[in-house]
Amino acid sequence: MDRLASLSTRLERIVPPDSSLGVRAQAHLDQLTKPQGSLGRLEELASKLVEMSGKEPPTANRPVIFTLAGDHGVVAEGVSAYPQIVTAQMVENFLRGGAGINVLARHAGARVVVADFGVANPLPSHPDLVVKKVAPGTQNFARGPAMSLDQALEAIDAGWDLVEGERSRGLDLIGTGEMGIGNTTPASAITAVITGAPVESVTGKGTGIDEVALQKKAATIRQGIELNQPDPRDGLDVLAKVGGFEIGGLAGVILAGAAHRIPVVVDGFIAASAALIAVTLKPEVGHFLIASHRSAEPGHDAILRHLGLTPYLDLRMRLGEGTGAALAFTLIRAAIRIYTEMATFKSAGVSEKQE
Amino acid sequence: MDRLASLSTRLERIVPPDSSLGVRAQAHLDQLTKPQGSLGRLEELASKLVEMSGKEPPTANRPVIFTLAGDHGVVAEGVSAYPQIVTAQMVENFLRGGAGINVLARHAGARVVVADFGVANPLPSHPDLVVKKVAPGTQNFARGPAMSLDQALEAIDAGWDLVEGERSRGLDLIGTGEMGIGNTTPASAITAVITGAPVESVTGKGTGIDEVALQKKAATIRQGIELNQPDPRDGLDVLAKVGGFEIGGLAGVILAGAAHRIPVVVDGFIAASAALIAVTLKPEVGHFLIASHRSAEPGHDAILRHLGLTPYLDLRMRLGEGTGAALAFTLIRAAIRIYTEMATFKSAGVSEKQE
Repeated sequence: MDRLASLSTRLERIVPPDSSLGVRAQAHLDQLTKPQGSLGRLEELASKLVEMSGKEPPTANRPVIFTLAGDHGVVAEGVSAYPQIVTAQMVENFLRGGAGINVLARHAGARVVVADFGVANPLPSHPDLVVKKVAPGTQNFARGPAMSLDQALEAIDAGWDLVEGERSRGLDLIGTGEMGIGNTTPASAITAVITGAPVESVTGKGTGIDEVALQKKAATIRQGIELNQPDPRDGLDVLAKVGGFEIGGLAGVILAGAAHRIPVVVDGFIAASAALIAVTLKPEVGHFLIASHRSAEPGHDAILRHLGLTPYLDLRMRLGEGTGAALAFTLIRAAIRIYTEMATFKSAGVSEKQE
Repeated sequence: MDRLASLSTRLERIVPPDSSLGVRAQAHLDQLTKPQGSLGRLEELASKLVEMSGKEPPTANRPVIFTLAGDHGVVAEGVSAYPQIVTAQMVENFLRGGAGINVLARHAGARVVVADFGVANPLPSHPDLVVKKVAPGTQNFARGPAMSLDQALEAIDAGWDLVEGERSRGLDLIGTGEMGIGNTTPASAITAVITGAPVESVTGKGTGIDEVALQKKAATIRQGIELNQPDPRDGLDVLAKVGGFEIGGLAGVILAGAAHRIPVVVDGFIAASAALIAVTLKPEVGHFLIASHRSAEPGHDAILRHLGLTPYLDLRMRLGEGTGAALAFTLIRAAIRIYTEMATFKSAGVSEKQE
């Protein structure tokens, strides 16, 4: 299989960063006019960015949120509160600039790349819409695999290619976002399979279903896992059997970010499920991930624990689209400014701590 | 006493906001193209701002951080890791733009008003330094009251006047910040007195003292409280006996913000102790407070519980100066943009939830 060989070659480019860079960055932070460590996780962010990117000082001048859209055959089981047409309608909303992610990306000074990875309903052509449609929606994974192995590879490849395309413009910070009615269902399935957590504990109300629908959603996920038997050690198999096209695309975005040492800011639950797939394919990817916020979806915690990540924000958000990543960009910019703009004890003539 | 009568008159202007404004703001947020409530605490922030300010939409075009400096006689007891001269040195650093608060205020698009409320060491005159010096440092509260009742009133008045001065420029969002070597000691004393929490539970390492010094600090605070017997129901008495000039000044800033319906973003532990004083003087002030971040200082939690506030950020910061407030300003701006810039379901032609 050509696609599999090509992905393997790409994955070889992902190597862990040199941790001594982070230590040196912290030494710089310790010379700034503040008690050592008193800017807490803002300092941690700054030194992580140095370590991940290898750049000192780090930059966030060309941040991009990749908001990938896809539909899900599993909505036939009644797992979502919204009709499938909303995926396409929201993509149009993204292109007009009226969605939450547009607003928060403007606030953060970031561009949004909107890409169709598998929207079921037709979309008008638009200069800002990147078309990477693998198929018009996945199959219903409660009845069979969501997609073929080749489609899974195609989605990952296309996500990776998106990053390659943006690099020519100087991309230095990646945010992951998504839109897809029903996509908390594959995200919960992926989480249960890879982390080993019970389905009930990682299944939530998504956009707002009631208790009865929640039980049905969990039963659907259990049924899909039992039927398809995805192999938890094989990210491609999990993606193909219970995943989604936008999730595969985001896994590709994340892998490409790691390969190019561009820090990847993971949005909420669905984006984190894509990170799970990516890390299962190549564990070294974990070194390049920043968890933006803690989602209100219960499955998110299981992923964060599995990946060893602690989010920077906890605002009970559950919108997706990349909104949490965009908010985290503003903290990242703050951390970089602290790193680059604060005076040192020496330059400011401020006395140091008494020992 | 003229000053007391004048403060009483000022306090009468503080009235609780109309809570129906917040309800109407939430109704607007519910029409935007996102599942209801899915932007979590960002939505809560937007509707609080409408309620507090009475402005719909709310604004944050002219945000100001008030960073007030003062020294503390109690440093004679060895409660701080840094020498007292650092208060003056850091004020000079603020005026040159090299401190943490300068960097984060620039990041947030906020001005910093630096005011000397009681720095012990001489400061050069500077066009950007507001001089409201009550005295060159408080007295050592382990040996007697920190200040006279008249000085406490003077500090509060001067803080209030600072806000009046800035209002002519269109002030619409207030952040509270401070600088004062040793000022976690009065903050812990105020917290223990007003919340009733045990001194040990609200006393922390400040800028970084060791375990032995921490025991000494707690003992000093207990001694000061036993000696002075501040009345927990009387904010003025608490401020005078165990407080600080910059803390009194911030209480005045907070009271003035509430009187003018300007939302007040409370920074960390020391600023929150000023909010305790303000709320003790006029409970209605509580309606106008936004807790920015959860400080690493243990006493902060006791204050937040007492005031019924939940901070928006938890980044283990403990720098003060207004740095947490400045970071929260960026969230507030994001919340306002969500409120004003997002498309509605109707305007975007997006289908609503299926019932």
